[in-house]
Amino acid sequence: MPGKIFTTEFEPCVMVIFGATGDLSCRKLYPALYNLYLHKQLPEPFVVLGLGRRISDIDDYRKIICESVQKYSRQVNKDICGSFLDMFRFQQFDLLESGSFERLGAYLKEIEQTVRTGGNRVFFLAVSPEFFGTIVTKLAEHALIENGHGWQRVAIEKPFGQDETTARNLNITVRKVLNEENVFRIDHYLGKEMLQNLMIIRFANSLFEPLWNYKYIDNIQITVAQTGGIEKRGHYYDKAGALRDMVQNHMLQLLALTAMEPPVDLNPNSIRHEKLKVIKALRVLKGEDVFKNVVRGQYGEGIINGETVKSFIQEENVRSGSETETFVSARLFIDNLRWAGVPFYIRTGKRLPSNCAQIVVQFKTLAGVLYFKEHLDIQPNILVIKIQPEEGVYLQFNTKELGMRDRIVPVKMNYCQNCEFPHSSPEAYERVIRDVITGDSTRFMQWNEVELAWQFIDSIIDVWKNHKPFFPNYAAGTWGPQESDYLLLQDGRRWWLC
Amino acid sequence: MPGKIFTTEFEPCVMVIFGATGDLSCRKLYPALYNLYLHKQLPEPFVVLGLGRRISDIDDYRKIICESVQKYSRQVNKDICGSFLDMFRFQQFDLLESGSFERLGAYLKEIEQTVRTGGNRVFFLAVSPEFFGTIVTKLAEHALIENGHGWQRVAIEKPFGQDETTARNLNITVRKVLNEENVFRIDHYLGKEMLQNLMIIRFANSLFEPLWNYKYIDNIQITVAQTGGIEKRGHYYDKAGALRDMVQNHMLQLLALTAMEPPVDLNPNSIRHEKLKVIKALRVLKGEDVFKNVVRGQYGEGIINGETVKSFIQEENVRSGSETETFVSARLFIDNLRWAGVPFYIRTGKRLPSNCAQIVVQFKTLAGVLYFKEHLDIQPNILVIKIQPEEGVYLQFNTKELGMRDRIVPVKMNYCQNCEFPHSSPEAYERVIRDVITGDSTRFMQWNEVELAWQFIDSIIDVWKNHKPFFPNYAAGTWGPQESDYLLLQDGRRWWLC
Repeated sequence: MPGKIFTTEFEPCVMVIFGATGDLSCRKLYPALYNLYLHKQLPEPFVVLGLGRRISDIDDYRKIICESVQKYSRQVNKDICGSFLDMFRFQQFDLLESGSFERLGAYLKEIEQTVRTGGNRVFFLAVSPEFFGTIVTKLAEHALIENGHGWQRVAIEKPFGQDETTARNLNITVRKVLNEENVFRIDHYLGKEMLQNLMIIRFANSLFEPLWNYKYIDNIQITVAQTGGIEKRGHYYDKAGALRDMVQNHMLQLLALTAMEPPVDLNPNSIRHEKLKVIKALRVLKGEDVFKNVVRGQYGEGIINGETVKSFIQEENVRSGSETETFVSARLFIDNLRWAGVPFYIRTGKRLPSNCAQIVVQFKTLAGVLYFKEHLDIQPNILVIKIQPEEGVYLQFNTKELGMRDRIVPVKMNYCQNCEFPHSSPEAYERVIRDVITGDSTRFMQWNEVELAWQFIDSIIDVWKNHKPFFPNYAAGTWGPQESDYLLLQDGRRWWLC
Repeated sequence: MPGKIFTTEFEPCVMVIFGATGDLSCRKLYPALYNLYLHKQLPEPFVVLGLGRRISDIDDYRKIICESVQKYSRQVNKDICGSFLDMFRFQQFDLLESGSFERLGAYLKEIEQTVRTGGNRVFFLAVSPEFFGTIVTKLAEHALIENGHGWQRVAIEKPFGQDETTARNLNITVRKVLNEENVFRIDHYLGKEMLQNLMIIRFANSLFEPLWNYKYIDNIQITVAQTGGIEKRGHYYDKAGALRDMVQNHMLQLLALTAMEPPVDLNPNSIRHEKLKVIKALRVLKGEDVFKNVVRGQYGEGIINGETVKSFIQEENVRSGSETETFVSARLFIDNLRWAGVPFYIRTGKRLPSNCAQIVVQFKTLAGVLYFKEHLDIQPNILVIKIQPEEGVYLQFNTKELGMRDRIVPVKMNYCQNCEFPHSSPEAYERVIRDVITGDSTRFMQWNEVELAWQFIDSIIDVWKNHKPFFPNYAAGTWGPQESDYLLLQDGRRWWLC
């Protein structure tokens, strides 16, 4: 969802990365910085200061960056380990050690004097969530933020809390020392190319805009599927589960962008205001309704891409007898005038048959007269917004089969914008970093959204807690438990392939 | 526009072709019969009786057929001149010679006794229009039609009259001896593949049906362009002109199918009833309005596909100083609730830059807020129904340009249904012949339509007659006179490329 169009004001600044030698930094931040650098999408001057415990030497740090870019960047040029590395600095840093923040402050001042970044600072918290509060508090104690010299912004990774209470506590801690405009709660899904596109597809096309409501839409299906298991994240994931890890943030954000009313203008607050209204209108599920409308699953052993894979229970750092869900699907309703009676089916999970994220808009079929009287098998019209791995739009409508017979067959029109040049599309984190640097908060979560999303999620978890699930209930490599299919079959519908 | 779906009842019959050695028969009828034969779309038994003056021998006739199929058929198999030819008979026939029709009657009886076609007869009038009345009258005089044994149908080629008066006289002659249900007034355009499809695209898609009216459509453009000149048809064409030759029939039929209300069912009369209502609602142009809304043109010399071609005036059998138009474009309005205020721009002509027939539906752009406020160059959404040479659907809507900038660009989705297998699509005449044989009148003109179309055309011609045009006013190989572009420029629009 583009906020201001064409304009991005780059002001000189220093970006401080907490967790500079960690997994997120290596997989996402350095490749993103590298691509921003290649496309001249960074301020001038600009310095990245890495903070980490494991190493002490700037050369070691630059080696890590260089390797991470070579391994994970969508584009790799010859000069990869050349001048790009010049912008990086390093400081050994232990959060628990006294004096760390003082030394950080001193080093920042030194950098700012030599490089002239005017006191503008981005603090990027790529560390374990339990440290978010501590870091922000200490930054304030040492006057490293909100200090009246330039601007200071703090970017906080997900998860923002584990439920409403912890999220609220974290937010109180953060807001005690930071103004809302300087808090950037990251949901990197909002940086994905096709999510930028969703608003344009909806609001710049007279073919779709008039049809985008309960009168013409039969149902909407949002799928975010992964073939991967939990890899080395067992410790975190076993506590979180799919509902907290994916639904509370990414899935509800996708839902909000698909369902929201047109904003009055393209300013960040106007857009976030409309998203918030959708989450507010989302029908909260309680008691029996949770079982009727939400399906949870956990994968057992199975086969993916021809290889046998472990069950969730067998994964590293998962408690034996864990009741954590690795799959969720649900039938949701948005109780407003636009969406009255239209089900939003969502599903997400680990160890599913494909890596795929998409939004399917299934239009109502026309009344049972004319062709619909004689051809009972006419397919509905559908519009698919493909988020990944393919990015594009798929449209299906009806036409006459070529030839003398008057058979009706679907036309399948596919537009893939990243197929020809597979790495042309910016990664989500490129947008995340650029937005924090330029101060565009459109693609970040405001507190109200986070709070309402947790209320919605907590209500489901409350019910689940009191009912032991029969896990595992789907084999790795399948589309979750059968109940997920029944959810739609009950309504006379089916999941569209992802 | 498909009538009854899937059902076609083939009853044994004899098809009698008047003008069996003529141009239309060779170019269209024999290739069509051959393809129907290949696809088993002919009755059993079935006989074709050719009538002609030039030759006398059945072997000569079969040679002509064989050559015409080899030259013009979309598909040619090995057995081309084999068993296919068995169905043909020949009788030398001179319309003006006494005894011709008696001998025809005798031969038909002979055939019917041996082949057992039960008296069912199709008379196909592939002769010069001045003979239509005479032939039908004589057929009646000799009890070859409406004789109570089986059914007899008469298929009449265009043009049906040269104006309202001559058309009415012809119709009186025809209807005096034939019931309306046995008169098949051919407009072969209605047999074209994509015209069959037009109704399905409109009425079997919830993406398009709700938008098909003045609220969402900005304008509709219908183009039928030909690169060819008038070839050997100078004698006919110089008397007719583009308005009579193309607009009175093909263009108005395209318009009617595009604009009509949904019929109550798919029966021929229900569909024709709706088309008739469109022609009735068409705003008649008189006096000054003709000059404001209709552009006529005649081609001068020019270059097409790199070759210099003659002007119309220099063509064979064209009168010196001819004021006949070879190009027409017009701004038409349909005065009903569905189309209030929506211009239908039509254009057709000879010696234009491409061979192309299409219907462009241009949707309104959305209100000037959000994206439309900042991007003044956003393209409108358009749907193009491509009739020939490509058959298919083209759809254009807006999307975000891939990359960090939020630029809006059109997505161009193209569906070509005859590109992969260029000759897979039935020729219009295959459908024309099959429809007459099976008695499906959906794709033929009823008298009321012909009459109203002539009234509309005559009103324009009346004005033109009294104003000498400045011809030639466009060079061969261009899109007609500049006035044709002004017609749309005045309204802030432009022709979409064909």
